[in-house]
Amino acid sequence: MDGRGAIVDRVAAPDGILSVVDGGFESVLMNRCGAWLAQHRSAPVLLSGMIGSRQGWKEAPYRDCPADATNVVQAMAKLTLSDGRNVHVVPGLRYVDPEGGHDVMRGEETQIFGLPDLERGDRVVCLPGTHSKWVAVRNGRIERFATYMTGEVYAVMSKHSILGRLLVGDAHDPMAFAAGLDLARRDGGLLHHLFRVRTAGLMNAMGGERLSSYLSGIVVGHEVRAALAGFPARQVGLVGSGPLTSLYAEALRRHGVEPRSGPEDAAAHGLYRLAAAMAA
Amino acid sequence: MDGRGAIVDRVAAPDGILSVVDGGFESVLMNRCGAWLAQHRSAPVLLSGMIGSRQGWKEAPYRDCPADATNVVQAMAKLTLSDGRNVHVVPGLRYVDPEGGHDVMRGEETQIFGLPDLERGDRVVCLPGTHSKWVAVRNGRIERFATYMTGEVYAVMSKHSILGRLLVGDAHDPMAFAAGLDLARRDGGLLHHLFRVRTAGLMNAMGGERLSSYLSGIVVGHEVRAALAGFPARQVGLVGSGPLTSLYAEALRRHGVEPRSGPEDAAAHGLYRLAAAMAA
Repeated sequence: MDGRGAIVDRVAAPDGILSVVDGGFESVLMNRCGAWLAQHRSAPVLLSGMIGSRQGWKEAPYRDCPADATNVVQAMAKLTLSDGRNVHVVPGLRYVDPEGGHDVMRGEETQIFGLPDLERGDRVVCLPGTHSKWVAVRNGRIERFATYMTGEVYAVMSKHSILGRLLVGDAHDPMAFAAGLDLARRDGGLLHHLFRVRTAGLMNAMGGERLSSYLSGIVVGHEVRAALAGFPARQVGLVGSGPLTSLYAEALRRHGVEPRSGPEDAAAHGLYRLAAAMAA
Repeated sequence: MDGRGAIVDRVAAPDGILSVVDGGFESVLMNRCGAWLAQHRSAPVLLSGMIGSRQGWKEAPYRDCPADATNVVQAMAKLTLSDGRNVHVVPGLRYVDPEGGHDVMRGEETQIFGLPDLERGDRVVCLPGTHSKWVAVRNGRIERFATYMTGEVYAVMSKHSILGRLLVGDAHDPMAFAAGLDLARRDGGLLHHLFRVRTAGLMNAMGGERLSSYLSGIVVGHEVRAALAGFPARQVGLVGSGPLTSLYAEALRRHGVEPRSGPEDAAAHGLYRLAAAMAA
């Protein structure tokens, strides 16, 4: 990124930590970004996400909430490359609720710091995904958050439960998705509503090609219902792009909540903000 | 069974409908029960469960609720063996809720008809399992019911989700199970509480050998919480025996509800009651 926070070049590759053998993290960095490093010898280098986990390159232990960008910078781990250059590893965040229950994130904190106008006022942010995060931010500080296993429950129920046999493809069907959202707002609970996917298929109330959208609406609807109870808001910021964000936007609107789309490249902007806080 | 409803002989075998090839249902019956049939030529023969499904021997279409034993007898399907003897197939039940949603059971209705003193008053019955059923019965008539995918969600999350990697064995840990029940009574929703299994393992709040009981407490707790909202009762009859019934009894007690254990062999007693209703 340049000195004003604009992205000038980017690279993406399937080099997640589980694919790196024998701790060869530095060679992956050099293969992907070596030219940048050679060209910009004084640019700060920051890493975030699972690279800072115990299974990553260098563990950056979780920082407890509440935490703002300065707190996160203070908790960064540092490692040194073969040529002596320093690299900074962004820590994940931990939230301990009043009953002593734990929640954790790693990488999402960086995306949140990439949101515009973060320093001003209260906001609720949702990062949809395999493990969706809902986050309360006040005046630039991440106060608390909760994780919902929505994407993973959808995936394992689709692939490995008795529901899977009834599902035909996974094309999006807006009516079936909306029917799932509506069902999730009624009484009965998720464990019961999941069975409705089966009876809708068995009783031919819904064709098999619509059932994956129905299932998706049920689980997304249950997430949004539970999360809005814990994170009440009239507006919710959605981080991410593409079809999943649109589904969450629709679920929010059904609860009378206005979705606000986040910027593209929130992670990059968050890294820039953290680098700026390091320099300050 | 004898003429007073006592079991005089029994056989159990892994001959579920999916294991029967080329529609060879009569040979399975003859292999397992041929000697009884020869010895008791006038005894009524009743089949219940998936044998009456579309994939079974003879489809007995679902009977709508409310339904008592007489209604079920009237909806039985009939088939004739090679020697001309009649066999009766118990239909499953269907419940259509006020919003038009469907629920179904097949086999559990027979177990319910096997409960003592069914004709008198209101009761709520729970049949724990892969797909748990909660049933409202009034004066011997099954009024309505709901299915909860509790056992299957537990199984697929244990085996196929990221939680499975943290679970060490599945020995019962009463404290961890109780902690799961307690968590399920708090706010947050099932999708969030499932992630707590992960953080409890990651943060070493709970050893891996306790996590399967924690997960079990969370899903059973969510079922019981949602079901008691839909089927309010001070007493709930539990059908079944063994460890699962004990877990549900504990979950009910935590909600201030008294569990009542059903009789052993509820299915056999239910078949007897239906045979008696046929004769009447």
